[in-house]
Amino acid sequence: MSTVFKKFRTGIFSAGAFALGLATERHFHLYADAPDQPIHSVDTVDGFLPGKPGNVGVTESYTSRIARFGFPTLDSLRSYPNFVVSYDRRNRISNWVMEHLTRENLKSDSYDRKGIEFVEDKSVHHFFRATNQDYKGSGYDRGHLAAAGNYRSNPEHIKETFVLSNVAPQVGKGFNRDKWNELEQYCRKKVHEVGQAWICTGPLFLPQRDPSNGKLMIKYEVIGHNHVSVPTHFFKIILYESRGTYFMESFMLPNTVIPDEKPLNMFRIDPEVIERSAGIILFNRLPRNQIKLIK
Amino acid sequence: MSTVFKKFRTGIFSAGAFALGLATERHFHLYADAPDQPIHSVDTVDGFLPGKPGNVGVTESYTSRIARFGFPTLDSLRSYPNFVVSYDRRNRISNWVMEHLTRENLKSDSYDRKGIEFVEDKSVHHFFRATNQDYKGSGYDRGHLAAAGNYRSNPEHIKETFVLSNVAPQVGKGFNRDKWNELEQYCRKKVHEVGQAWICTGPLFLPQRDPSNGKLMIKYEVIGHNHVSVPTHFFKIILYESRGTYFMESFMLPNTVIPDEKPLNMFRIDPEVIERSAGIILFNRLPRNQIKLIK
Repeated sequence: MSTVFKKFRTGIFSAGAFALGLATERHFHLYADAPDQPIHSVDTVDGFLPGKPGNVGVTESYTSRIARFGFPTLDSLRSYPNFVVSYDRRNRISNWVMEHLTRENLKSDSYDRKGIEFVEDKSVHHFFRATNQDYKGSGYDRGHLAAAGNYRSNPEHIKETFVLSNVAPQVGKGFNRDKWNELEQYCRKKVHEVGQAWICTGPLFLPQRDPSNGKLMIKYEVIGHNHVSVPTHFFKIILYESRGTYFMESFMLPNTVIPDEKPLNMFRIDPEVIERSAGIILFNRLPRNQIKLIK
Repeated sequence: MSTVFKKFRTGIFSAGAFALGLATERHFHLYADAPDQPIHSVDTVDGFLPGKPGNVGVTESYTSRIARFGFPTLDSLRSYPNFVVSYDRRNRISNWVMEHLTRENLKSDSYDRKGIEFVEDKSVHHFFRATNQDYKGSGYDRGHLAAAGNYRSNPEHIKETFVLSNVAPQVGKGFNRDKWNELEQYCRKKVHEVGQAWICTGPLFLPQRDPSNGKLMIKYEVIGHNHVSVPTHFFKIILYESRGTYFMESFMLPNTVIPDEKPLNMFRIDPEVIERSAGIILFNRLPRNQIKLIK
């Protein structure tokens, strides 16, 4: 990871590219190719609608014949009172977690996380469920995606963030307990100022050039009995709303020890770089040209 | 890849484990832990139903508040006349492709693939769409998941298999054009004999022990401008039906040169090993105890 971190690239979002290394280059290139292409949403979560646009010559009878004994699936949504999780059954962590924070939510910090234990998500099939045992001895923290610190007004809500589907393996000292925590605090501070925000948080698995053969490779560790994937990076994309105006900012941090003196600003990145890598389109119901990008 | 291939392990499915290497061990262990746990399907493709079992204390208003500007998603289904694809937007290939083959489908082989070109899947957002250009010069074949050879009775149906969302990067000589092709032929032969089958085909990304630090790592190449992932392995799980009796067999092959003399039987594996790695549950509408496993 440290080699990623040592690389430096120039560009519109050089700070973010810094964290990403070589892979960024191509994404920017792509983005530059087709900046005006509309963000459409053929791929909705309600998913499988035979005959809808994008399907080729489908007839319902064929499809139901193929589907006779059910379809396997990968994308499983879970809703909790304060956040929604898309669980990645292959990686045993979430694809993304979405929250809505308001100044009111954050008014009180009467409660803290003391004594709260992480719990398995029993709604995930046991084949794909991460356990506390998986993290034990791995050297990684159980890092929150929806931050526990966002829910200090209600002890039940803090507790709900401790479900393992809201957690991913994070480097502890220098990341989860430091720069990542600083990012979470920054988000809360901004929500205090602005009024409300939608925050999407998730893991990334980014390629790096293999110096031995020049190939672009994705490489990451899996931990525990259930092979819980250790992301190479994490992202947060935040959409703020203030008096009818929308602002967006995005951060991407490598899952590694980050020196305290590196400012958070260095990890800003164009949200599209994250979207391309994560395989998601964010806030697709809001036209991108109505959003001011904070760079 | 060749080091995976050289490893040999004993076990119930030693032949398949052979192909998988170290990772298999743990999966079997897990399976042994909880063999009787029911295969449930909280995770359906219609996905997001607030308040359904498995969701914790959800209220619809909270969820719609969080979802106000849409949800990102990863799992996108596409239906074609003869197969259904679950597209993996992060890897730019499919999670799985499902077909239903009958003796009648396969009766004629009047047409062949000569002159048919691979085409982009325009229904996939351009951020996540694989292109012919991505494969060019990569050294990998555009390997079919739903085999072109299954649709030789109808030239339009052959053509439909050439959409790039039904394709993944495969080693050409020694794999796509050889052992993998042999597996496709084997499936057709069996369908001729048995009458009908449901075939699920897909990629796998399996970990290997890194000898330098003992850690279990997932490592794979990405090709082209769009970073199309090169799977480490491919699987086929086949469910046959004959006079009301169901049989299942599963194969897992490493995406590498496989010597011709290695029999296909060496690549048989317990379907659960595939399911755990692929993040899917197959044929969940048919109780597993009603299926005879071909080993």
